[in-house]
Amino acid sequence: MFYTDGKLQYPVRVEKPDPLFARALQQAIGGVEGEIRVAMQYFFQACGARGNPKFRDLLMNTAAEELGHIEMLATAVALNMEGAPLSEREAVAKDPVASMVMGGINMKNILSAGLSAMPVDSDGVPFNMSHIYASGNIAADMTANVAAESTGRVLAVRLYNMTNDPGMKDMLSYLIARDTMHQNQWLAALEELGGHQGAFPIPNSFPQEEEKQEFSYAFLGFQADGAPPVSGRWSEGRSIDGKGEFTSTPLSSALGPEPVLGKAKPGSGAQSEQM
Amino acid sequence: MFYTDGKLQYPVRVEKPDPLFARALQQAIGGVEGEIRVAMQYFFQACGARGNPKFRDLLMNTAAEELGHIEMLATAVALNMEGAPLSEREAVAKDPVASMVMGGINMKNILSAGLSAMPVDSDGVPFNMSHIYASGNIAADMTANVAAESTGRVLAVRLYNMTNDPGMKDMLSYLIARDTMHQNQWLAALEELGGHQGAFPIPNSFPQEEEKQEFSYAFLGFQADGAPPVSGRWSEGRSIDGKGEFTSTPLSSALGPEPVLGKAKPGSGAQSEQM
Amino acid sequence: MFYTDGKLQYPVRVEKPDPLFARALQQAIGGVEGEIRVAMQYFFQACGARGNPKFRDLLMNTAAEELGHIEMLATAVALNMEGAPLSEREAVAKDPVASMVMGGINMKNILSAGLSAMPVDSDGVPFNMSHIYASGNIAADMTANVAAESTGRVLAVRLYNMTNDPGMKDMLSYLIARDTMHQNQWLAALEELGGHQGAFPIPNSFPQEEEKQEFSYAFLGFQADGAPPVSGRWSEGRSIDGKGEFTSTPLSSALGPEPVLGKAKPGSGAQSEQM
Amino acid sequence: MFYTDGKLQYPVRVEKPDPLFARALQQAIGGVEGEIRVAMQYFFQACGARGNPKFRDLLMNTAAEELGHIEMLATAVALNMEGAPLSEREAVAKDPVASMVMGGINMKNILSAGLSAMPVDSDGVPFNMSHIYASGNIAADMTANVAAESTGRVLAVRLYNMTNDPGMKDMLSYLIARDTMHQNQWLAALEELGGHQGAFPIPNSFPQEEEKQEFSYAFLGFQADGAPPVSGRWSEGRSIDGKGEFTSTPLSSALGPEPVLGKAKPGSGAQSEQM
Amino acid sequence: MFYTDGKLQYPVRVEKPDPLFARALQQAIGGVEGEIRVAMQYFFQACGARGNPKFRDLLMNTAAEELGHIEMLATAVALNMEGAPLSEREAVAKDPVASMVMGGINMKNILSAGLSAMPVDSDGVPFNMSHIYASGNIAADMTANVAAESTGRVLAVRLYNMTNDPGMKDMLSYLIARDTMHQNQWLAALEELGGHQGAFPIPNSFPQEEEKQEFSYAFLGFQADGAPPVSGRWSEGRSIDGKGEFTSTPLSSALGPEPVLGKAKPGSGAQSEQM
Amino acid sequence: MFYTDGKLQYPVRVEKPDPLFARALQQAIGGVEGEIRVAMQYFFQACGARGNPKFRDLLMNTAAEELGHIEMLATAVALNMEGAPLSEREAVAKDPVASMVMGGINMKNILSAGLSAMPVDSDGVPFNMSHIYASGNIAADMTANVAAESTGRVLAVRLYNMTNDPGMKDMLSYLIARDTMHQNQWLAALEELGGHQGAFPIPNSFPQEEEKQEFSYAFLGFQADGAPPVSGRWSEGRSIDGKGEFTSTPLSSALGPEPVLGKAKPGSGAQSEQM
Repeated sequence: MFYTDGKLQYPVRVEKPDPLFARALQQAIGGVEGEIRVAMQYFFQACGARGNPKFRDLLMNTAAEELGHIEMLATAVALNMEGAPLSEREAVAKDPVASMVMGGINMKNILSAGLSAMPVDSDGVPFNMSHIYASGNIAADMTANVAAESTGRVLAVRLYNMTNDPGMKDMLSYLIARDTMHQNQWLAALEELGGHQGAFPIPNSFPQEEEKQEFSYAFLGFQADGAPPVSGRWSEGRSIDGKGEFTSTPLSSALGPEPVLGKAKPGSGAQSEQM
Repeated sequence: MFYTDGKLQYPVRVEKPDPLFARALQQAIGGVEGEIRVAMQYFFQACGARGNPKFRDLLMNTAAEELGHIEMLATAVALNMEGAPLSEREAVAKDPVASMVMGGINMKNILSAGLSAMPVDSDGVPFNMSHIYASGNIAADMTANVAAESTGRVLAVRLYNMTNDPGMKDMLSYLIARDTMHQNQWLAALEELGGHQGAFPIPNSFPQEEEKQEFSYAFLGFQADGAPPVSGRWSEGRSIDGKGEFTSTPLSSALGPEPVLGKAKPGSGAQSEQM
Repeated sequence: MFYTDGKLQYPVRVEKPDPLFARALQQAIGGVEGEIRVAMQYFFQACGARGNPKFRDLLMNTAAEELGHIEMLATAVALNMEGAPLSEREAVAKDPVASMVMGGINMKNILSAGLSAMPVDSDGVPFNMSHIYASGNIAADMTANVAAESTGRVLAVRLYNMTNDPGMKDMLSYLIARDTMHQNQWLAALEELGGHQGAFPIPNSFPQEEEKQEFSYAFLGFQADGAPPVSGRWSEGRSIDGKGEFTSTPLSSALGPEPVLGKAKPGSGAQSEQM
Repeated sequence: MFYTDGKLQYPVRVEKPDPLFARALQQAIGGVEGEIRVAMQYFFQACGARGNPKFRDLLMNTAAEELGHIEMLATAVALNMEGAPLSEREAVAKDPVASMVMGGINMKNILSAGLSAMPVDSDGVPFNMSHIYASGNIAADMTANVAAESTGRVLAVRLYNMTNDPGMKDMLSYLIARDTMHQNQWLAALEELGGHQGAFPIPNSFPQEEEKQEFSYAFLGFQADGAPPVSGRWSEGRSIDGKGEFTSTPLSSALGPEPVLGKAKPGSGAQSEQM
Repeated sequence: MFYTDGKLQYPVRVEKPDPLFARALQQAIGGVEGEIRVAMQYFFQACGARGNPKFRDLLMNTAAEELGHIEMLATAVALNMEGAPLSEREAVAKDPVASMVMGGINMKNILSAGLSAMPVDSDGVPFNMSHIYASGNIAADMTANVAAESTGRVLAVRLYNMTNDPGMKDMLSYLIARDTMHQNQWLAALEELGGHQGAFPIPNSFPQEEEKQEFSYAFLGFQADGAPPVSGRWSEGRSIDGKGEFTSTPLSSALGPEPVLGKAKPGSGAQSEQM
Repeated sequence: MFYTDGKLQYPVRVEKPDPLFARALQQAIGGVEGEIRVAMQYFFQACGARGNPKFRDLLMNTAAEELGHIEMLATAVALNMEGAPLSEREAVAKDPVASMVMGGINMKNILSAGLSAMPVDSDGVPFNMSHIYASGNIAADMTANVAAESTGRVLAVRLYNMTNDPGMKDMLSYLIARDTMHQNQWLAALEELGGHQGAFPIPNSFPQEEEKQEFSYAFLGFQADGAPPVSGRWSEGRSIDGKGEFTSTPLSSALGPEPVLGKAKPGSGAQSEQM
């Protein structure tokens, strides 16, 4: 169950409204690396968490934090849209850079939202909830969360580099710090779940003797000339999960035959020639 | 550039066609944890790889492998669809379980594809390429790949548990082994990129003194009663990236004020009362 | 800013797990009439609310309530999925009705979520955030909210009628009651905004003398034989907004000419014949 | 069944082609507030209308009208695209404002449609038919229609304010007038269906004694500090549907317990630690 | 501009309601091969038709026909849904086959539409308007229309084979006949546009001497072992457009070099190692 | 099974990086007429090909070619993005045209991909795999392929006309040539399948005496005034498939009655007035 207090988790200040930057900020709201994604991902992972309840608590607590981040960013978008012209006449009356704005923004922020934020990305594409990874496997979920916070921090850094506004830089330096923590937090949770050797390969509940083990730690090569594939840590030494030795093998010819589906079934809507 | 030889990477054998299992296999083709996703993700990461070219080679090589996995699974779907009835009369002529099939399958596998595979998931939802994570940050990409292979192996295990067909179990035991390798392979690449302490927080090119460092390693609590949040590895000790100490702090009140957007701009399409 | 307490807003009890009903409940989570939609709609309307701040407070308060509803429903889905078979062998070992389940559920609830809830509808289609209507016009938003709660209550009633489980009926009777309140609540907000005569036509800030007023209260007919269109309250009497008189007019011929776009521009990729 | 006459319902005239405005007009075609949406919504509501056939006639008649509006807007887009440059060289040869156009338009209007209209919104996002609300409950449908025409008129007003072209202003003043009528028309239909007291709560066919009535007219508060929620017409007085009295109550603690899903099922693909 | 008469273009009769077949029919409404697609495709092609106006007339006339087909199919879905149970109790009270229905249908036809049709496909996926191909090149559009009617007739034949209901078979035999005509109609239009030799390669307005002509009629082979690709009409003889001779060539090695993107730009959010 | 050699199929050279053109090139990667579409379409058609195996070989061979085209275009996008500014300060430091760029590009190419290509179209909309037409009918598939290569070549020509860069023009002249070949190739395959008279109407396996033959070659008119529809090759003469004679008939009145769905089922969530 959730509560609110109507305040912002961290101050949001815009010194010089910049509608182009509002567009960029939309990526942090409704982009696949954005805050709706993490808020809803932690929320659904929490709702489906089985086993030790501490992970449910951990996830739901951070879901609440991320909801506050969406609110901050939505406020930042609205404040930056203050400067947007509502007509081309208004745009031209300002300087050429201002007139550039009208074509450069997400028009939906004006036309659909009246100068406010929307759950869309920086090109106006709505967020799709298929990006909520909540697998029912707590370790797999943690890897998805590390990935989400990694691409999330990359995005926040790009936004930080894009703007000169001190207020926006301040807000983003807070969000970047939180991404630092969250990357570490989910890595810490993975460590609690056994780390590289206890948790991997995920799921660790599947008996490895049932997999085709000659392929479990082999780096297969698919070079057209049959040459060995590029070497690295992945091609020799102990595997990271500690359960095998890396090898490297060109797979110069197929292990299987040509597939044959045979003739089409009568009545299946194929051409006569296929039957 | 790509080449083909018209053969299957690994044999695909179905002893007893099972259209319901064909539906389940569709998740491994067009689901967000499926093979189209990894094939295209590694492909686009390779195309955008800057810096040491070995990572481009590593990624493109494995993209070629995954294309072969889609082909195997598409063949498996078509072979399992052999048993599907094309009419309700045909369904009823078989046993009640067979008649169950008609409602239980993705109808599009019959109606749109004529008993063949499609790039859709197990509920018939088409794959959307927004799931291709290729961030331009090679370490962030590796975390996304670990996550993809983790949820991918969870899915493959569930499919393995779902079927009794020896041919399908054999194919899946190969795919599960490859997921084991790929989890390890991307973890190995992360190790080459510096591991927990060299690569994190991602991106490692951002000067940490520019983030709000008092929040960088603090586990913030958002419990409505102001109680401390759940403790664990994330709340004390050295941070996983080795650059800070975890602390734990309830955030019992907001750091920011109530947001005020003020009045709506005249001509913005708001109600008069808002202006 | 949001807080949580880890509890359910209202008790969720399932006496006899029913995976088919879990599928139906998914519509109330991720369907276009579902709880994600209202939670996020009120949230974004709040974030963009300009003018009297009481509407921001009203919206954000109810957004918090709806987040708790998603949590309740996600718990209900997971509890109902307890009964789902993980393999066809397991399905057959139960009764024929149980074996029906495997084909009848959203397979992703097993394959992607491990028997938990997902942000998808009852046919497994992910929720798309384009359904968040937050127009920047507070009265238009209220009409969207009345509509959302109306279709939402219709859905909840259908779910209530579909199940026999006393726990589920109890939970749904709570949600139905809340939908009753929310329909009334948004109608009450519309009343505060002037009701039919003060708020309509929305937006009320546009000077009506600039619209083509001879068409503002005319019920136009488009019957192929030129007959008058069906009559009703909409074809005579004072208009509902009190600003005009309804009339009824067959539009038996077009007011405009045939459109002519002329020739295609050279270099535009058209056929030569079009230029 | 439908007929056409190849003419425009109302004249469409563009004095000075403006590709940026063409982009904006796309929102009125393929945006969620646009004309495809209402045309198809009324069409599907008509096709599923049960009960008094006059509502089917009403809906299908107006669906025909809206099809004509799409045609008008598509013509307007094509006429405004006349001015678009097909190459950057051509853009530069004009003035700087013209060169701005190339980046500011939906590129698909050039690349995919050859300077014509498309069923996409102003940011190039295709219309998705999930936005067609046709619930099978005629009153719920009317609320959805009022909402659609309210956001539709807000959009049309924003477009009217954005352009200076007399032809476009004339066309939009017609469309705005029709939105005025349609808001009133669907409100009138709601009045025929019983108005606030007869139609609400929707669906009115559900016996209210089966809902948890103590929550049916209670404005619940979710303020983190337990304070009463914001007051207004929604917190006191007779409910709008006339069937209860509004009250206002902080819900300072949860009515339900912490949710417990227990251990993960063996074979479900979870980690060992969850079982 | 469009008109309606409230009648069905062709009689729709269902002798024995069959909710599973209703699900299948949904593919013909909202599937990518369905009637919404062709209606809207011809409509948008007409709206953007430049050059000889007879093609606009041809397209808009057939768009009107297809709108009537959607109406027929939507009626057929609603009539077939008559037999659907609204609760599992009701399902069980009928025979086992009836109980199968509840899981086998698109649940949204009950939950969202109240036993009526929706603009979704047979697995409940909403139609997406990106499938409307209207390229601005009239010949390219005709090829898209031939393709649409070909997959459309394949679908209609599969539906015809699936049902035993005489009413449904009669309706489908009408729709199949219309697909026959429409395939021929668009092929006839292509013939008017010059046929194979006048219209192809599309667009015919591009000077062929500007293409890399040594590759214009060469069937390139991409066999991993460098073998010649499969031979057929495409590998020898006059090309179909009459403008070249087919040849067949293995492309045993790449024409281009390894791609090198170089180092990542500072400030671009990449890892330090990439810079 | 697929192999790679890490090289480009054809050289990709950019003389003057142009981020706006990078945006345009995205359409050829992730647009509905783009290379992902054809690569995956031929791939899935191959995987489902029944009957003569030469078509599987033909399709899979060309799928491999198209994968190489995606790689070329993705490289071209990354090379053109080199010139993109990462901040507005950087943009302003260049000339006004450069500052235009920031608003004119797909922001996701910076924010999500770090100056690299993405599987999205020129307006940033991700490619959706529902565009993969693989019907199980080999002739229908060939018509879809002709259509794909026709719209694809139209797009490539528009891109060629848009740019002045010699490297880009060279690359596009190669791709245009390949589209020429592919249009001819699929037409040749259709010829092998019987051409107009052998393959059409598709599917040719359906006995035409079961269609309502009086409508099979009749061009029906839907003009509101009952006038004959526009005449052309489609209204007289032998049908293109050689199996009938074209006629032309106004359908001035409906063949079917008004549809009547009757009353709503009790418990279906409709309003009381509908029951």
